[in-house]
Amino acid sequence: MIDKTKRPLILITNDDGADANGILVLTRLMCEIGDVVVVAPDGPRSAQSNALTVTHPIRFKEIEEKEGLKRYSCSGTPTDCVKLALNEILDRKPDLIVSGINHGSNAAINVIYSGTMGAVLEGCENGILSIGFSICNHSLSADFTDFEPFILQITKETLKNGLPHGTCLNVNAPVGEIAGVKVARQCDGRWTKEFARRADPQGRAYFWLTGYFENHEPDAQDTDEWALANGFISIVPTKIDLTAYNAIEIVRGWDI
Amino acid sequence: MIDKTKRPLILITNDDGADANGILVLTRLMCEIGDVVVVAPDGPRSAQSNALTVTHPIRFKEIEEKEGLKRYSCSGTPTDCVKLALNEILDRKPDLIVSGINHGSNAAINVIYSGTMGAVLEGCENGILSIGFSICNHSLSADFTDFEPFILQITKETLKNGLPHGTCLNVNAPVGEIAGVKVARQCDGRWTKEFARRADPQGRAYFWLTGYFENHEPDAQDTDEWALANGFISIVPTKIDLTAYNAIEIVRGWDI
Repeated sequence: MIDKTKRPLILITNDDGADANGILVLTRLMCEIGDVVVVAPDGPRSAQSNALTVTHPIRFKEIEEKEGLKRYSCSGTPTDCVKLALNEILDRKPDLIVSGINHGSNAAINVIYSGTMGAVLEGCENGILSIGFSICNHSLSADFTDFEPFILQITKETLKNGLPHGTCLNVNAPVGEIAGVKVARQCDGRWTKEFARRADPQGRAYFWLTGYFENHEPDAQDTDEWALANGFISIVPTKIDLTAYNAIEIVRGWDI
Repeated sequence: MIDKTKRPLILITNDDGADANGILVLTRLMCEIGDVVVVAPDGPRSAQSNALTVTHPIRFKEIEEKEGLKRYSCSGTPTDCVKLALNEILDRKPDLIVSGINHGSNAAINVIYSGTMGAVLEGCENGILSIGFSICNHSLSADFTDFEPFILQITKETLKNGLPHGTCLNVNAPVGEIAGVKVARQCDGRWTKEFARRADPQGRAYFWLTGYFENHEPDAQDTDEWALANGFISIVPTKIDLTAYNAIEIVRGWDI
């Protein structure tokens, strides 16, 4: 699939914004592997999922160009960034899309809220090898040093082996020392106690999103949450076909 | 699971806004089945996927209260609406969440962009029976008359039979006469030619999202797109576990 005589073309995006430390580290790493184009939001777009900008137009501008690297910022969401790159910025289809490094976990159900993973699903829809990298640390000064060799190796293996149709990767790194890598499944769980209630000076209530993740299967050892809690990098092969195949025959049996 | 001696409590939301015709029709229908609470965005939030509002707080206000029905509008996304309803508005867990009726198709890959389906996935994460209803007609004056008896029947069957853990329903209606119902899988496809390029009075480019859906399997007869193209309502059982289980062993075989 990939012409191995040429350096791969790698598109990078994220949801923390074009200047976040995570994407700068990821860009430095990817420049070791291929030619790189960054198209990232012009500011934070966390928890934007696969949101698209439909009520107003979007723009992009070049912020850097040097040998093997071009960087653009875009006024849209992470998914907008991928769409704009594929349709309007890149002169050929990239060999790989990487998103991140996200400052914060995208394990378990976070995959459906994450702007980082939204961009990855968008790449996957377009038939492009796509990987999201995240670290379980919200600090903008998080240290990625121990994660870096794994990012390089996972990326090289993805380029070498490819992925099944409609499949991308959701890679998360634990806080602290890394014990190794586990290929895992998405842990079952939910967010609870999700709002902090405040009152404005007029006494009217407003609500800040917050909350706690409730793990529904803390003892299962094949989940991404277990891997991360035990010091492993988790890799969840992730798909864009949301069909619950096991339920098709069940619903066909209904009186409809 | 549901106490059949009581009228079910039904939470309704959408992504077209609390005053859209689709949610007013859905509210009228659900009032035939149970006690209804509507918590819907205070304006259009199309293509908001599972986006969450994290950079500013959200608010809600009551817009109507009568016997068996309360309606609220919320400043957030559809997923915010469900979270706010479950955490702050409802005094008990609803028996059912319905979202829509969306003005526009949420079949195929649209499921990952849809704010309507974002709310449904959110309900599913919280262990609540959840259904998204959409019609393949973007007109705000779309006629839902033929769809209505199917909405009622699908809802009643869902309440009666339940759904497997982690599964919700994505229901789409065709334009024109309805030939029946097909339980289907999500069609493989992608959006192409996605932007209209314009120039502002200063000559700077800006981009409007638009595009065409490219069906990758137009001959397959078990997809939602085939059902809709042939006059059938499509029901896709949809899941929140995005793990590509078939790829786990493949990736475990890599040199990582």
